[in-house]
Amino acid sequence: MNRTEPISRRERPAKPALSRAAIVDAASIVLKRDGADKLTMRRVAAELDTGPASLYVYVKNTAALHALLIDRLLGNLDLGWDETEPWRTRLHRVLSDYESLLVQYPDLARTALFVWPDGPHYLDLIELLLRLLQGAGANMHTAAWAVDLLLQHASSTAAEWAARASGTGQDIRDLTTTLESADLNRHPVLASMGPGPFTRGDPEERSRWAEDALIDGILSHQSQ
Amino acid sequence: MNRTEPISRRERPAKPALSRAAIVDAASIVLKRDGADKLTMRRVAAELDTGPASLYVYVKNTAALHALLIDRLLGNLDLGWDETEPWRTRLHRVLSDYESLLVQYPDLARTALFVWPDGPHYLDLIELLLRLLQGAGANMHTAAWAVDLLLQHASSTAAEWAARASGTGQDIRDLTTTLESADLNRHPVLASMGPGPFTRGDPEERSRWAEDALIDGILSHQSQ
Repeated sequence: MNRTEPISRRERPAKPALSRAAIVDAASIVLKRDGADKLTMRRVAAELDTGPASLYVYVKNTAALHALLIDRLLGNLDLGWDETEPWRTRLHRVLSDYESLLVQYPDLARTALFVWPDGPHYLDLIELLLRLLQGAGANMHTAAWAVDLLLQHASSTAAEWAARASGTGQDIRDLTTTLESADLNRHPVLASMGPGPFTRGDPEERSRWAEDALIDGILSHQSQ
Repeated sequence: MNRTEPISRRERPAKPALSRAAIVDAASIVLKRDGADKLTMRRVAAELDTGPASLYVYVKNTAALHALLIDRLLGNLDLGWDETEPWRTRLHRVLSDYESLLVQYPDLARTALFVWPDGPHYLDLIELLLRLLQGAGANMHTAAWAVDLLLQHASSTAAEWAARASGTGQDIRDLTTTLESADLNRHPVLASMGPGPFTRGDPEERSRWAEDALIDGILSHQSQ
């Protein structure tokens, strides 16, 4: 980390000195207690017994706060690889771990689609994915784009699962009903297939298929 | 459509009769005027000069309202295929059109990740994707899962672009700064690569690469 962090000038003992780490600590408390949609600079400031303006010296906006917080969460993942586990198995495992982590924080899962996490654990995750992709034979350019594509898939899958689990108001029967309304003249392929193939398979089976398709598609499209 | 729609018993001339179509009309007005995050049953009811309770007879919840509205928007897409345009070109075009449509409605783009649209235009989109995938040689089971994967990618890409355009508070320099903080001992692969490969390419080039990787990955993973 070569960014210099501002040093707090507040020395009164009643309040702990502000720092980026203290702000992320407070944000973690707000997240667990109130949920990610309540995770505002104002509320984190209140948790630290200060005003939001003091926070902006350390964290420039709410997105930056989310970025630090997601990085903190990523610290809970196993991001090592001893190279004895085959690269594909290890890749499935880290993507699955990442999804499971995000599913526990539905609002943050949605945020992870738009926010680049900021911190050493995110870098650990990228480093692991790069090593696995290089192990699979991907060149550097391909591996970099692949990291983006794999994390996009994992984040959106997590966000979807989290939304369904928290009850968005739709369930699989809504999809089935819509598909069943296909018109044999207007939608002949779909009407003759029916909804079955769309709803087939459990989430793990579908995830594994999607990840394998992604990985092999990536490896067959090495960019220069 | 074999679902029977309730018939309104309200005959007073001052208010138009309620119907699912009238509700979606009103929702479209609210969407354009106030944005998708303001698109609640309450506000749509106000637009129709009635109470929310009257709406629930026709549309069971906010998610169902979004599902109908996204279907209405999909009616703006060209969803035909005369089979003279090569399937891959046509597939890129429909995914790109779908993304461009959603990017115009940032909040709805996010919603499209969690909501299955409900209506004939969504079925037109699925029918087109199925025909293109069958044209590419995919079997029925693979094509059904592939529709899900391709639309997930397109929806999350649109949601990402929309979020960045509307200013989430992060820009590409934030990612660059984070990647540059990679530690040569802890993140040797990343530190030696630098941020360049991650930020390389314009959105169209990256989208096209990702879609080709997805398509070819799908075709090499025919599920049975």
